[in-house]
Amino acid sequence: MMFTKSKITTGLLAAGLAGLMIEPSLAQEAATAEAKTAATAPNVAYIFNTMLFLIGGFLVMFMAAGFCMLEAGLVRSKNVAMQCMKNVSLYSLAGIMFWLVGYSLLYPGDGNWIIDNVIGNMASVSLPQPAQDTGGDYAAGSDWFFQMVFCGATASIVSGSLAERMKIWPFLLFTAVLTAFIYPIAASWEWGTGWLDDMGFSDFAGSTVVHSVGGWAALAGTILLGARHGKYGPNGEVNPMPGSSMPLATLGCFILWLGWFGFNGASQLALGSLENVSAVSRIFVNTNMAAAAGVLVAMLMTQITYGKVDLTMALNGALAGLVAITAEPLQPEVWQSVVIGAIGGIIVTFTVPLLDKLRIDDVVGAIPVHLFAGVFGTLIVPWTNAEASFVTQAIGVGSIGAFVFIASFIVWALLKYTIGIRATLEEELEGLDRAEIGLEAYPEFGAGSQRI
Amino acid sequence: MMFTKSKITTGLLAAGLAGLMIEPSLAQEAATAEAKTAATAPNVAYIFNTMLFLIGGFLVMFMAAGFCMLEAGLVRSKNVAMQCMKNVSLYSLAGIMFWLVGYSLLYPGDGNWIIDNVIGNMASVSLPQPAQDTGGDYAAGSDWFFQMVFCGATASIVSGSLAERMKIWPFLLFTAVLTAFIYPIAASWEWGTGWLDDMGFSDFAGSTVVHSVGGWAALAGTILLGARHGKYGPNGEVNPMPGSSMPLATLGCFILWLGWFGFNGASQLALGSLENVSAVSRIFVNTNMAAAAGVLVAMLMTQITYGKVDLTMALNGALAGLVAITAEPLQPEVWQSVVIGAIGGIIVTFTVPLLDKLRIDDVVGAIPVHLFAGVFGTLIVPWTNAEASFVTQAIGVGSIGAFVFIASFIVWALLKYTIGIRATLEEELEGLDRAEIGLEAYPEFGAGSQRI
Amino acid sequence: MMFTKSKITTGLLAAGLAGLMIEPSLAQEAATAEAKTAATAPNVAYIFNTMLFLIGGFLVMFMAAGFCMLEAGLVRSKNVAMQCMKNVSLYSLAGIMFWLVGYSLLYPGDGNWIIDNVIGNMASVSLPQPAQDTGGDYAAGSDWFFQMVFCGATASIVSGSLAERMKIWPFLLFTAVLTAFIYPIAASWEWGTGWLDDMGFSDFAGSTVVHSVGGWAALAGTILLGARHGKYGPNGEVNPMPGSSMPLATLGCFILWLGWFGFNGASQLALGSLENVSAVSRIFVNTNMAAAAGVLVAMLMTQITYGKVDLTMALNGALAGLVAITAEPLQPEVWQSVVIGAIGGIIVTFTVPLLDKLRIDDVVGAIPVHLFAGVFGTLIVPWTNAEASFVTQAIGVGSIGAFVFIASFIVWALLKYTIGIRATLEEELEGLDRAEIGLEAYPEFGAGSQRI
Repeated sequence: MMFTKSKITTGLLAAGLAGLMIEPSLAQEAATAEAKTAATAPNVAYIFNTMLFLIGGFLVMFMAAGFCMLEAGLVRSKNVAMQCMKNVSLYSLAGIMFWLVGYSLLYPGDGNWIIDNVIGNMASVSLPQPAQDTGGDYAAGSDWFFQMVFCGATASIVSGSLAERMKIWPFLLFTAVLTAFIYPIAASWEWGTGWLDDMGFSDFAGSTVVHSVGGWAALAGTILLGARHGKYGPNGEVNPMPGSSMPLATLGCFILWLGWFGFNGASQLALGSLENVSAVSRIFVNTNMAAAAGVLVAMLMTQITYGKVDLTMALNGALAGLVAITAEPLQPEVWQSVVIGAIGGIIVTFTVPLLDKLRIDDVVGAIPVHLFAGVFGTLIVPWTNAEASFVTQAIGVGSIGAFVFIASFIVWALLKYTIGIRATLEEELEGLDRAEIGLEAYPEFGAGSQRI
Repeated sequence: MMFTKSKITTGLLAAGLAGLMIEPSLAQEAATAEAKTAATAPNVAYIFNTMLFLIGGFLVMFMAAGFCMLEAGLVRSKNVAMQCMKNVSLYSLAGIMFWLVGYSLLYPGDGNWIIDNVIGNMASVSLPQPAQDTGGDYAAGSDWFFQMVFCGATASIVSGSLAERMKIWPFLLFTAVLTAFIYPIAASWEWGTGWLDDMGFSDFAGSTVVHSVGGWAALAGTILLGARHGKYGPNGEVNPMPGSSMPLATLGCFILWLGWFGFNGASQLALGSLENVSAVSRIFVNTNMAAAAGVLVAMLMTQITYGKVDLTMALNGALAGLVAITAEPLQPEVWQSVVIGAIGGIIVTFTVPLLDKLRIDDVVGAIPVHLFAGVFGTLIVPWTNAEASFVTQAIGVGSIGAFVFIASFIVWALLKYTIGIRATLEEELEGLDRAEIGLEAYPEFGAGSQRI
Repeated sequence: MMFTKSKITTGLLAAGLAGLMIEPSLAQEAATAEAKTAATAPNVAYIFNTMLFLIGGFLVMFMAAGFCMLEAGLVRSKNVAMQCMKNVSLYSLAGIMFWLVGYSLLYPGDGNWIIDNVIGNMASVSLPQPAQDTGGDYAAGSDWFFQMVFCGATASIVSGSLAERMKIWPFLLFTAVLTAFIYPIAASWEWGTGWLDDMGFSDFAGSTVVHSVGGWAALAGTILLGARHGKYGPNGEVNPMPGSSMPLATLGCFILWLGWFGFNGASQLALGSLENVSAVSRIFVNTNMAAAAGVLVAMLMTQITYGKVDLTMALNGALAGLVAITAEPLQPEVWQSVVIGAIGGIIVTFTVPLLDKLRIDDVVGAIPVHLFAGVFGTLIVPWTNAEASFVTQAIGVGSIGAFVFIASFIVWALLKYTIGIRATLEEELEGLDRAEIGLEAYPEFGAGSQRI
């Protein structure tokens, strides 16, 4: 990094407050070390497209912090450090595995057979040098970065459902398989020019490809893991286990909402034309309005049903609205986005208690938000996108669901019956922070080990 | 979303560590599904301008999280979940109301009469399809998104002042009126090419149009709502009610500071020329320096006055500096921005205790920060902008102030004497979290209901 | 800010749900107040370059929040408000001092002598008016803003090491000297076209120029300040003093990780060509992968060594990986970035206990992260960058280290033996929040004064 002091003019310290402008016209070019090629028209589109991936990518990357805060706020204080540990490490591991294997499986080129796709494409990625990376529509690294953070988001969905009783290392082993194989293979069917894409399946930014994949993986894990000790009583009672910090959960929701502008907006994949940048703008509006509708409807539903507004339901309403609009954030009119988001909010308020009735213990509500709202968002695409058909959408939802649920179930089962996935009862009662992390999240005020 | 694997070269897994580069020159164009029009000169300005709104817009959207964290940190633990609830829902509602009514009132076109503006323009917004959205200087959706988040920011200002005793639903009803009618009408006078704009009133990014509007609405509400139980003793004592989490309040301040680069910077409204991008850069610097000066001056003032530095005053000093520079962040020299921000910081340190003397219970200091510093920032514009006059600035401050305060007072009063706006004493003592939300923000360590 | 309502079409409220499109082709140009010059090819590169500084700049600015949250989470609750106070004020002060003095020292122009550089260049900065700011490769203000936030980041590194016993005002006096003189002079040797740059010293984004500078300053301060009371027992015991909030520390790490994309990416200094934007993309990927490797390696190391994963070590592993890649984030292949980040993670796990053995009490681990990993990152540059030599890198590390450590030591010593730098034992036991800030970070659940 090197600059020369030019254009910014300076006065002596004593003269500073007078704002004297000395040598304001000193040219900067001569002193600049790098020769920069002038941007021309095709170059400009390339730069815009690349910027879209980079800006969208860092927003989606920050969703890792959003998931972490949401989950840290919704678990009890004795498991908060563990939830932070899982979120930091899963994002890290997703990046490594997607680099080693996943990206190559997601974009398998001409390989048509599983054997070819899975074995022949297991390859780590190397980026071209910038001087060679001048063809195409965008820089190679920006594309890879954007794809990687999507893989990370998929993995982030899983950790919340399994919180408070899942051991860290088996969780990371599953994450490795998910991000190296399960997600990339499922995603390749649609985004890697695979058979679902050929059929006309439509999933703009991943209601199914990302969110329901994460949700199915979480569902399989939750079933095999079992509920937290004491969550469900012998007579059908559901014992509330309130989260430790509502402001952190709210912060997490806001960060995810922010990140979703990158998630959906940059999935337009191009910015270098009037039509593309206008499309990204429309996506921003629709994304925001679906979330807003999800919040308000979830509030109204809980006020009507329980006589009080429920903050965690409102937060999940926002997320469900966001997940629901993700399959098609471009085509809907604004009012249609409001409707789609509102239905997402309704789905959450109905399915959170439904899971409890089924004794499926999803600590943060990730399955209603990411799986159920994701399925809905995918199936509703034909309402606003004339090129999509309900049958094809259902085939996509079903095939990806079946593959991911079965594959995940097998991996979780293998882990369960070999190294084990669940903390002991003593560890669970004590809290995973002390048991596996060796410290407490709030050592001075956490109730940690004194509580059940 | 669809990619093809190109340019990013891959080796077999075993060869991965060696970083083998296979087929580095494979062209990407052929495989790309979308045909993208090449960007040309006028297109390029359109894309830049739109990006400014989108990037500025997501930064301002994130200010909703900043307000939420600031307020969650400054209220007592028994009201933290409620404060989160209010902030998530007000931002959501602001988006819905601004879409249904507000935007059309803010830009009323040729209508000159109130009746025409208010009734005839109550219209929900629909965005053009991207293929049709190619005229003009920026994409329609990006403009709408940027305007919407400003409306949301105005509403966010109100919630903090009224914290700890205002019920949720009347608060949201007021928010609906504020974001559908009061803010858009006031803003239309200046930004909708209305009469204040015709007069030459100058308010670059909204010291008056956004911040004092929020401040006046909060002041009206606070007067009608009354102080928190126990805040002011019978003999004039002011009882401190310290906020529950200083780090969350600090985080909120930092997020707001970050968002202000979008708030002020993108209010330049264009990025597609040397002069515009240079203006945005200058705005970034001035915005930052005003905030910095506000922090340091507030620290010095509290050290001198009380013998200790006051963290909440320093945070409000940053915000007051930001509000003060918002009316004119472009014209000042750097040193002038420092002076303007410093005076903002001084204003806060004097007016926070002044409000307490008047027994106006502003929980987070939003009235000093947004109203008083906003008025100052608007009146000081002629110092640095030769096109502004003090008289016109005063007319703008006075007319918007009178309209917003009176309109807000009427709405608050209507709510107060119909459905009521204040929680009962029992609910207030118990905390709004238990009373209206049905959960606690910190169930394991919050002192909630045991405290007064 | 002024808009006209065009392109966004509106229907009457009743017709809103039908999304009627009225007057969709109304042209926007005519109504736009500002005349905007059309962007042409050289202009476009200028705009892109400026955007890189602005976007990178706001990301690095937000790192101030990241440092604040990290440190607030890693100190005990009785010192949390103080840590927030220090972080807000140091960022503010860094901006003021860098404006008054620092920037001019960093880019000293033709001055070759110390006396010329230090005295003759002490000058506050003034920005050109946008209309004059059209030469060169980017807008003057964007460059200044980007440089300023780097100066702020350097100062942020120091506060964590000295936490829990350093008084606020001496800390700020040191910060003033660091940001006005020490950092700018050291940085000028490399980035101000100084003698290290002439020699061929290579430090892309500041492993040495920023991170080790902060680390050396912290080391000098920590030595003179002494350890916290009770940290080291008489028989060599190291008493753990666990941080008060793991989720806030984790949030801080994520925010820093996010900010690093701006820190490293925008240090490419140009975006307006295919090669530059491709380079920025590559930097994003390498930056992320180094952090990811740092996390995973630190987890593995602590699992192997202690039988438990250590969350704070994993967070510091991420930061060490980021610091290590900062000296050269462009040239490495992805796998090399993984290796560099992994070694950063290893360094932290070994040097954190090492410092404790030396009884150097670095509260948050800033010295291992920023100094040791920064030195390593600088020395490893020749591995991936053929233009760098190990000898030159060592000269850069040594000369900047010697200058900064000695200068900092002198300033700290002057402060120590005049106004004093350390809180009294009573203040330390009570906590700095009550002693110097006059409030508690968590008044309702902080254990504050009751704990040692």
